[in-house]
Amino acid sequence: MNLLFCCVGAKPEPWVAGLRAELPEANVQDWTPGALPADYGVVWAPPQQFLDEQPQLKALFNIGAGVDALLKLRLPPAASVVRLDDAGMSVQMAEYVSHAVIRHFREFDGYEADIRSGKWSYRKPLMRANFPVGIMGLGVLGERVARTLTQFDFPVKGWSRSPKTIEGVQCFSGEAGMADFLAASRVLVCLLPLTPETTNIMNRETLSKLQPGAYVINVARGAHLVDEDLIALIDGGHIAGATLDVFRNEPLSTDHAFWKHPKINITPHTSARTLREETIAQIAGKIRAVEGGTPITSLAGVVDPNRGY
Amino acid sequence: MNLLFCCVGAKPEPWVAGLRAELPEANVQDWTPGALPADYGVVWAPPQQFLDEQPQLKALFNIGAGVDALLKLRLPPAASVVRLDDAGMSVQMAEYVSHAVIRHFREFDGYEADIRSGKWSYRKPLMRANFPVGIMGLGVLGERVARTLTQFDFPVKGWSRSPKTIEGVQCFSGEAGMADFLAASRVLVCLLPLTPETTNIMNRETLSKLQPGAYVINVARGAHLVDEDLIALIDGGHIAGATLDVFRNEPLSTDHAFWKHPKINITPHTSARTLREETIAQIAGKIRAVEGGTPITSLAGVVDPNRGY
Repeated sequence: MNLLFCCVGAKPEPWVAGLRAELPEANVQDWTPGALPADYGVVWAPPQQFLDEQPQLKALFNIGAGVDALLKLRLPPAASVVRLDDAGMSVQMAEYVSHAVIRHFREFDGYEADIRSGKWSYRKPLMRANFPVGIMGLGVLGERVARTLTQFDFPVKGWSRSPKTIEGVQCFSGEAGMADFLAASRVLVCLLPLTPETTNIMNRETLSKLQPGAYVINVARGAHLVDEDLIALIDGGHIAGATLDVFRNEPLSTDHAFWKHPKINITPHTSARTLREETIAQIAGKIRAVEGGTPITSLAGVVDPNRGY
Repeated sequence: MNLLFCCVGAKPEPWVAGLRAELPEANVQDWTPGALPADYGVVWAPPQQFLDEQPQLKALFNIGAGVDALLKLRLPPAASVVRLDDAGMSVQMAEYVSHAVIRHFREFDGYEADIRSGKWSYRKPLMRANFPVGIMGLGVLGERVARTLTQFDFPVKGWSRSPKTIEGVQCFSGEAGMADFLAASRVLVCLLPLTPETTNIMNRETLSKLQPGAYVINVARGAHLVDEDLIALIDGGHIAGATLDVFRNEPLSTDHAFWKHPKINITPHTSARTLREETIAQIAGKIRAVEGGTPITSLAGVVDPNRGY
């Protein structure tokens, strides 16, 4: 069985060595043009040439949770797309979002500014009941984040395309549920997949429906957010600030207003990083299952191309 | 039934009004010298004169979790001391400590420094398995913090004077267990009560036993920590840094090295603030129970003066 590794931005050697160690029966190679035909691909944003040269591929294992970049390409006709199913990502998301929510709710930036200027000062504690946190997107990552925030006794709301039930979380769904979800949220966390339906979903109209003093956390994809609308609503006072990990263009262009905006914290797409060992173990396990007779379509993380995730 | 409020640093009016609303049958007054004899006191760091004038007091309800300041005073002979039992404090502690642990583990300060200087840079993710977090003190607050950190998949260790069992936490106890606990911890969180036995418990000898690159979080009392020893171990490289919320003298004296140390984050004793409504409701509930025949000694939070907590 032949396996090709083709991940833009990842150093291939440790990945290929790791896949060989987990799948000793496989012929694992780093893709170069003209490579022998393979059964499976392990990919991240591969060049179109790779896909065009390998029409016989049975499955493409994406080493991230989001497949929006891959689905923009022309894929081999029979290839299923399988995205990463947690593999150490959900705990990182829970950390990142909890950190951002707590930092804002507990006013730690304000305390630090006081300390820097030599001031020992108290702020009146804010009321947790007034800080409902709304999670858009209740997949593996969104559900983990929602559950974690309930541990901190915040009122937690969730929104997803199709109805979901999560203990301790008030769930809304579909287009019909969106306005109520937004009106019930003071902090908005985006963990949606990027699809044509969710592109620009955070815009002036939707963000204006959040509670006054809202806070926005985007850890999904930059294209979920209309940058200018967020800045206008922050500068206008309806939104208190934002923590953004993802951007329309990454790295963020050097002249973008987000770099220096005093109420926006940014990080370089680091909220949930692909962990090599966990990812190799998960993909190798799935390949072993398929080789053992499990249908690819029954794997966790298999993507419905029509739905886009 | 007479109730006196005597809390240094707290504005008395809303407390007295709140206690009157919860206990309409009680005569609630803000203490002034020469006040009528009371059955109960609601106190924080009261002047010795209050205690000396009220020898008939049956119970002193402390509006904080730590009673070290109160126990240094000469108390009325029959007065039980009852400390705050959570009342919204444990979730605040879980927030504060989680925020500090995640901030350090995820290197958010490093990322922010990069962003401030216009750099979009990745850091290799640290391994969670190499970041065991040790909690010293497993009372209501310590146990909540320990359970919360297990949600983030950190290895969690606990130490307490007497043996405890907490699911998912490796617990050590007593003097005999201290060295093993420290050697098993990379992050050390202090949530102990301050007693003669725990004063200066974080010193050069104990802190040197932590794993290299250790991180110290003190949210208990300033006197648990020997300040100079922490600074020497940070400057010497064994300890990576610290987050400190409590200090020997508060407010922290303006010339203290903690204010400007680049590896020490400080906050002005704000990790778990007394929440007035929750605290009034808890104390009023306990007073109603005692008036209804419940022995004071069976109340949650009743202090054993010999043990000191």
